[in-house]
Amino acid sequence: MKQEFKRVLLKLNFSETRAELCGNIFAENSRDGVYSHGLNRFPVFVQLIKDGFVDPKAEPEPVGNNGLVEYWNGHLAPGMYTASLAMGKAIDLAKTHGLGSVFVKNTNHWMRGGTYGRQAALAGCLGICCSNTIANMPPWGGIEPRLGNNPLVIAIPYKNEPLVLDMALSQFSYGKLQEYELRGELLPTIGGYDVEGNLTRNPKEISSSKRTLPIGFWKGSGLSFILDVLVSALSGGSSVARITAQGREYGLSQFFFCINTTQIEASIIDEIIQYSKSSETTDKDQEIRYPGEKTAAIRKTNDAEGIPVREDIWQQVTLL
Amino acid sequence: MKQEFKRVLLKLNFSETRAELCGNIFAENSRDGVYSHGLNRFPVFVQLIKDGFVDPKAEPEPVGNNGLVEYWNGHLAPGMYTASLAMGKAIDLAKTHGLGSVFVKNTNHWMRGGTYGRQAALAGCLGICCSNTIANMPPWGGIEPRLGNNPLVIAIPYKNEPLVLDMALSQFSYGKLQEYELRGELLPTIGGYDVEGNLTRNPKEISSSKRTLPIGFWKGSGLSFILDVLVSALSGGSSVARITAQGREYGLSQFFFCINTTQIEASIIDEIIQYSKSSETTDKDQEIRYPGEKTAAIRKTNDAEGIPVREDIWQQVTLL
Repeated sequence: MKQEFKRVLLKLNFSETRAELCGNIFAENSRDGVYSHGLNRFPVFVQLIKDGFVDPKAEPEPVGNNGLVEYWNGHLAPGMYTASLAMGKAIDLAKTHGLGSVFVKNTNHWMRGGTYGRQAALAGCLGICCSNTIANMPPWGGIEPRLGNNPLVIAIPYKNEPLVLDMALSQFSYGKLQEYELRGELLPTIGGYDVEGNLTRNPKEISSSKRTLPIGFWKGSGLSFILDVLVSALSGGSSVARITAQGREYGLSQFFFCINTTQIEASIIDEIIQYSKSSETTDKDQEIRYPGEKTAAIRKTNDAEGIPVREDIWQQVTLL
Repeated sequence: MKQEFKRVLLKLNFSETRAELCGNIFAENSRDGVYSHGLNRFPVFVQLIKDGFVDPKAEPEPVGNNGLVEYWNGHLAPGMYTASLAMGKAIDLAKTHGLGSVFVKNTNHWMRGGTYGRQAALAGCLGICCSNTIANMPPWGGIEPRLGNNPLVIAIPYKNEPLVLDMALSQFSYGKLQEYELRGELLPTIGGYDVEGNLTRNPKEISSSKRTLPIGFWKGSGLSFILDVLVSALSGGSSVARITAQGREYGLSQFFFCINTTQIEASIIDEIIQYSKSSETTDKDQEIRYPGEKTAAIRKTNDAEGIPVREDIWQQVTLL
């Protein structure tokens, strides 16, 4: 899968190293079970390059700094490339000074934010990153999409495999809604509103109304708002409003932050995991999991047994 | 109100300045409409002091650092006092280096986290802080409380009045559930489960089952988990598990973080606010608000017209 992605990216004028880095990230996202941002997203990424919204040759550029806060312009380079570099810089700063951060404007979709959180944690840092998106969620009290589902990532070193929280702020992404719709299933919980404004578990009705539910109703609405301010007002980049006005999702604003965790105590994490899992479960087949546990399990399985793919999309990629 | 709180705290062996600082924070919480952590909480705070879980004379102590990451031991000093000092230190570090952070172990309840976020923002910094709590929320898939509703605060300078997101990770606090129960009202949205495991808007049934709902179901459950790891495994302090084992909520772990925002662009924040408010509303009386807007409005009203109080609690305080 890595080789196939690299082949396509080289044809699109990616340099050797950049094609390898970006191809690997797509493949590893599928390998880790995040199919929506792995193989299944690859054709969309290729189209964005062809349409000129992702520039394979652009180089992100530091445009200023204030102590340990760096400001970068992504110049519409591939988002995975710039995110890897930005988190790398935040790691370097944190290794020397305890803390480090990079704000990036004018960058592109990073696919899976957990990639960069894990990068920080494997380097011995607590890593936090967040991004804005195109508007896809109404604010609390509103009907029309005005907020992004702005993903938030927090990753913490833990033994061989970091804890990684990687969550978008809508209860379900449009990709997830579509998956349920294709399977003809209801969502496991409420996920948004129908056109009459009633909460529903019907994915099709939510896609029609465009009223996805922010996590925690007014709380996720507020968190999405403040993360958009954080990434755009501090980077000087595009807000959700401006990205949405473009009509296509490009030129995003992002934040990368690291804390060097020389003092982290794994025994305390053990205790938190054990305590969490000690609760009686809602039913006997239910498991209580910590952030990143499921992803790590899928990674192991897929490493051993191969990555399941949607045959139609894989064929589509081989023809690119 | 400030004078009354100060009078009581002086009787409890608080120093002059400490009594004033802590009394002011309680009064300002009520003034800002956060009654649950103002006057209404004051008698609980007094009891914790009398029971020896808050030490009026203790001084928080720096116990180590790694560059711009400071580690403190709160020595069970009043939580508001230590939180003010810790955020003050994070501000000072950020003013010099761009970033600054303080991890505190063995501290106490800070009452309203927004107090310290606003402190940072009024000093020109983006302020983030979080705390753990006693277990009051089941993890996703579980029935018994194993997670705190660990509040998360993000505050950003904006003109004269900062944006302040201050949210606990349960959909409703037990205090809020009680308010609705006393008024004989249903919750505006689902807030937890009844003893049979059905989602409900009935506050009494949630209080009985002790199954409050994390914001966003599995997402808030994961966020609560990772914030507990962040504050406790990095500070070396007590986790939710250990706090809960004590039986009383004291000796918490907290994190304070600042980014100096010399480059913040208010015009981008204007744009985000306008865009958010431009959505059609769910009904014509509904207003779309940004984080901190309602609190600032209540502050103005209460400054002009006085602070509404629960007469029974006010009488109780005057007799202390």
